[in-house]
Amino acid sequence: MTVRDDLEPALAAYLAERAQWVDATLERLLPPEQRPPGRLYEAMRYSLTAPGKRIRPVLLLAAVDAVGGDAHNALPAAAALEMIHAYSLIHDDLPAMDDDDTRRGQPSNHKVYGEAMAILAGDGLLTAAFEILASPELGAIGNAETRLAVLFDLAHAAGPAGMVGGQAADILAEEQDEIDLPELEFIHTHKTGALIAAALRMGARLGGGTADQIDALTRYGRHIGLAFQIADDILDLVTETDGGEHSKATYPSLMGLAAAREHADSLVDRALAELEPFGAYAEPLRALARYIVARTH
Amino acid sequence: MTVRDDLEPALAAYLAERAQWVDATLERLLPPEQRPPGRLYEAMRYSLTAPGKRIRPVLLLAAVDAVGGDAHNALPAAAALEMIHAYSLIHDDLPAMDDDDTRRGQPSNHKVYGEAMAILAGDGLLTAAFEILASPELGAIGNAETRLAVLFDLAHAAGPAGMVGGQAADILAEEQDEIDLPELEFIHTHKTGALIAAALRMGARLGGGTADQIDALTRYGRHIGLAFQIADDILDLVTETDGGEHSKATYPSLMGLAAAREHADSLVDRALAELEPFGAYAEPLRALARYIVARTH
Repeated sequence: MTVRDDLEPALAAYLAERAQWVDATLERLLPPEQRPPGRLYEAMRYSLTAPGKRIRPVLLLAAVDAVGGDAHNALPAAAALEMIHAYSLIHDDLPAMDDDDTRRGQPSNHKVYGEAMAILAGDGLLTAAFEILASPELGAIGNAETRLAVLFDLAHAAGPAGMVGGQAADILAEEQDEIDLPELEFIHTHKTGALIAAALRMGARLGGGTADQIDALTRYGRHIGLAFQIADDILDLVTETDGGEHSKATYPSLMGLAAAREHADSLVDRALAELEPFGAYAEPLRALARYIVARTH
Repeated sequence: MTVRDDLEPALAAYLAERAQWVDATLERLLPPEQRPPGRLYEAMRYSLTAPGKRIRPVLLLAAVDAVGGDAHNALPAAAALEMIHAYSLIHDDLPAMDDDDTRRGQPSNHKVYGEAMAILAGDGLLTAAFEILASPELGAIGNAETRLAVLFDLAHAAGPAGMVGGQAADILAEEQDEIDLPELEFIHTHKTGALIAAALRMGARLGGGTADQIDALTRYGRHIGLAFQIADDILDLVTETDGGEHSKATYPSLMGLAAAREHADSLVDRALAELEPFGAYAEPLRALARYIVARTH
């Protein structure tokens, strides 16, 4: 899931400001000067502090806004979520997995630090995320019940029933000749969708949302997560100039371009419908949802 | 850290009974029939349910006993701790790390399931451990504050400041010509010691121990964790029959056999001293500590 730079100015400013808060929090939680072994912390920081839009933590903070909470209190949780995302990229890039030598134009973690240190940097970021959420000093405010529930949201979304399960399904799908639409949807809703939905759920919970609000924003997250993926597939297809073969199944390749656009539109409509009770507080989430499909037309 | 079979009968029975409780809990928390992808759960179960002494979870349960708590209530936490241990073995065995084809006479995880699935099985077990500790349905009883503190104990011990840091230091040490005693001690106190100390700390906390009791049992755990490692080094040396070279630094190789024995004895004495205030409830922990050094003489 990627966000392009052609955002409307107000949304772009909102996203950029919150991304900056997240960056500052990451710097505070994982500063350059750490205990030994320094090489491990360097490898963790290499991927964690690489420039990025911080879309998942920003969604978490926008969910806090949507329920009328104070986003600053949720920054440690937003940082923990970004650590989980960073770990997943490090492990996904490994030679045994997707075998990517670069990530956003930079050498991938294992190209710089070696495979062993890259595996450990991922393990370290994954574990540190839960350490932060459980820590009285580092963790987000809120009572223990809330912090435990937020931690469960994240662990459940990141683990075998979520992101790890989706990545495993993706690896297994590569061994098959072809996959069908339900399999593709399983991969995306788990590999990327679960963590995006968790971002909204965690934010709604930390912001003091009601059970109904938490569930509504979780559904919003599921819808936009999948819509983003379909939109990415469409953009990859229409900006493709070399006419090369598409070995990997995508939404347009499996359901056709027009139907894929319609599917993305309908998911965004459903996401927007979930936001109706939230009023003006949810304006950034609305703008984000609209932006997803605008770029596919 | 391994436990041999020459235990005194009462201690052996105590350990075996609790290991059985842990096995039953692992079966309940990670049953064979899971959601897809089945291959991921199979890989996780392959390493998690492999026969073992369950020494870390049993130490956790013994710490609950030592403070007069009910060990059954701590079984989910004990199972979560074993999941962390199992994940660490899977990742340590990977070709990029220690490159071990076998683990206790069985093919290692990546030899059976491939490297990608082994990495994901490890990631899945690591994440599932925190999911269990944070889950109202699956988690150990106790109020939210206690469960959050226990979760922090485990994350801190397993992460960069503990086990992951120790494994990284071990990997980095292999690139050096030789390491000295402080470096060896850093590796062992972090790579294996931190999780053993956490076992005691988690158990003492879940059993309702006072702050003093929790700290005393944590120190006991640190002492026996290191004593176990030194004892293993000594046993490896004295049972070595082929006279082969020892490329890896050990306590006897760095400080001499007699001094290593003395060091282990003194650590066990310090561990036993920590148990003095606990009376008869700590008898299993005493027997375990004495057993460590008995086998080195």
